[in-house]
Amino acid sequence: MDVPMRIALVAPLAEAVPPKFYGGTERVVWWLAEELVRQGHRVVLFASAESDTGAELIACAPQSLRLAGIRDHLGSTLAMLREARRRAAQFDIIHFHVDLLPHALFHDLSHKCLVTLHGRLDLPDALPLYQAYPEMPLVSISNAQRRPMPPCINWLATIPHGLRSRGCSFNPNGGGYLAFLGRISPEKRPDRAIEIAKRAGLPLKIAAKVDAADMVYFKTEIEPLLDHPLIDFIGEIGDSQKAEFLGRASALLFPIDWPEPFGLVMIEAMSAGTPVIGWPNGSVPEVVTDGVSGLIVNSIEAAAKAVHQARCMDRHEVRAEFERRFTVERMAGAYLAAYRLLLARADAPSSLIAPSGASEPMPEVWEEDVAERIGSTINELVTES
Amino acid sequence: MDVPMRIALVAPLAEAVPPKFYGGTERVVWWLAEELVRQGHRVVLFASAESDTGAELIACAPQSLRLAGIRDHLGSTLAMLREARRRAAQFDIIHFHVDLLPHALFHDLSHKCLVTLHGRLDLPDALPLYQAYPEMPLVSISNAQRRPMPPCINWLATIPHGLRSRGCSFNPNGGGYLAFLGRISPEKRPDRAIEIAKRAGLPLKIAAKVDAADMVYFKTEIEPLLDHPLIDFIGEIGDSQKAEFLGRASALLFPIDWPEPFGLVMIEAMSAGTPVIGWPNGSVPEVVTDGVSGLIVNSIEAAAKAVHQARCMDRHEVRAEFERRFTVERMAGAYLAAYRLLLARADAPSSLIAPSGASEPMPEVWEEDVAERIGSTINELVTES
Repeated sequence: MDVPMRIALVAPLAEAVPPKFYGGTERVVWWLAEELVRQGHRVVLFASAESDTGAELIACAPQSLRLAGIRDHLGSTLAMLREARRRAAQFDIIHFHVDLLPHALFHDLSHKCLVTLHGRLDLPDALPLYQAYPEMPLVSISNAQRRPMPPCINWLATIPHGLRSRGCSFNPNGGGYLAFLGRISPEKRPDRAIEIAKRAGLPLKIAAKVDAADMVYFKTEIEPLLDHPLIDFIGEIGDSQKAEFLGRASALLFPIDWPEPFGLVMIEAMSAGTPVIGWPNGSVPEVVTDGVSGLIVNSIEAAAKAVHQARCMDRHEVRAEFERRFTVERMAGAYLAAYRLLLARADAPSSLIAPSGASEPMPEVWEEDVAERIGSTINELVTES
Repeated sequence: MDVPMRIALVAPLAEAVPPKFYGGTERVVWWLAEELVRQGHRVVLFASAESDTGAELIACAPQSLRLAGIRDHLGSTLAMLREARRRAAQFDIIHFHVDLLPHALFHDLSHKCLVTLHGRLDLPDALPLYQAYPEMPLVSISNAQRRPMPPCINWLATIPHGLRSRGCSFNPNGGGYLAFLGRISPEKRPDRAIEIAKRAGLPLKIAAKVDAADMVYFKTEIEPLLDHPLIDFIGEIGDSQKAEFLGRASALLFPIDWPEPFGLVMIEAMSAGTPVIGWPNGSVPEVVTDGVSGLIVNSIEAAAKAVHQARCMDRHEVRAEFERRFTVERMAGAYLAAYRLLLARADAPSSLIAPSGASEPMPEVWEEDVAERIGSTINELVTES
């Protein structure tokens, strides 16, 4: 192993790390923390007190905010960031998973800070922030996620999420049903999933929660479609049931209608050996290798054909693609390379230091030069698709 | 006049200053800015570009965020605060009207910063922030507003809002109807207002907007009560119609069921000479002088009697009470005294300086001592009720 690093991970307080129910970001932070600890790094996790980690935990809220009924997370998050700031000198790297505030509070420490952006970036709301604090190094979770952003951003890398391969059991056989997993909402297009299943004549199981915000949509648009012998709405399922639910499916339907920044459920399906049928929006064409780990389609008709094709796909190949690209080991490796790149930049002679504000993209030769010096390659940092 | 000060006022970006429609905070900031400028101070206003002010305007958003359809104001506000931070050395005082973020971004400049808290403080959401950044000097807009706050707060003063007396025309006669003005929502209790009017046999005019969030409440709880010869629902009215609407009323009904932090509409009514019938929640007992500028009641029955009593109250006395306590001149004077107190604290010999964190309430003798030195009295700073 290389020299151990002192790494702070700053998680959202919305859910525990790992989350007790939903919470994609907190789950990714948990996997990353556990893997960095396993590799011998000194990791300090800023998170809610209910978290359960091999890292040193700095409890920044007595309970996860969502379960505590706290609706506005700003006050608690700012209090956590003051604590992180107080201890900043103890760390080589401070890695944030809370989207906007670190820019304003840590911009003067941006030589050792990075922010992984976990959300969609196509809304105008946060743009003024990115323009006002252009020095903060950012990590995108797909290349598609970056597309709407202005040119001033100091991108450090694209690092796709990774899953613990131990936790996801491979099912070599798959089942006879199509799966839809997640949340009922207009942009997830459960209506398309239902139409695909009916068109293809294959059973569909929908395991999804319905948030209060989407109840009207569910009642008016989706519930009337459920009364059909092929459609089985099983409601919300827990984390422990997911692997079996996905593993027994013949394909995961992902007919989304929005710029999904990553889509953890796609790699969860792949880890079970289940191919993904997805629309080419957001991250989908990067996560799904068309013809290997799934099929990318553009219409209900194409999807209804693809679900039959998917049943003939080699589930071992789907799993192998997951292991090549989406394990937590790979994600942690990419983050470690990003941390080292950041520190090498800070140590580089001033002629090599990027201009303050980093309004120009870093010249590639420079990145390669530094990457060579620090014994890794920039290719490790970016998704290959 | 005393020595002119260089004062930054940092307004919310939600609405223009002054607001084109609703927006109590932006209206108060506007009145304050205009009055400070009139008194010869150098005022710089951080606000949206649509603002219209005698101060120097630093435009921090091209349009008010609400009218621009921006739902998450965090990014724009953080960008504004970076600009304020960049210019911080230009000001003697930086006075914030955005609730939580200045604590985190300006705590190291707290010797010349203050935050007026415009919202309710009885929710637990922001408590961790106040505890993490206890040094920031805060102004409450009523004493009741402070009640739920922890003891660590560095309170500087309670300063009730003030209105421009020019803009509000006094009506010595009043009219024959009861008025309800503002927003239809469960905590404003329009249902109580309707019941009071029916019980008293007096006509009620309701001038109120219905937000999307309250539409179900309006449709199910309020609309069925409107079909009555005494009740007249006239919907949303503009700022220019308010003075006439209030001036022609015999009383304003304010039967609230929540801890109102101030309640501008009460002093708007008083400026027109119209007494206020209010429930003793939140700021009401501080704003309404019982028997002089209105009547405080605890039940529908008491209110139904009070509305008859109110018609015999001296409207000149109501207006006089407004002029004694709630003009913009008085508000600006109280803020200037608070600014001077803050600067005197910063200049005081270290033995007088409050402990960092200010976890103990400031000893009163100290405050009086400093106040004497700077030629004002602390009594000017606090509401008298």
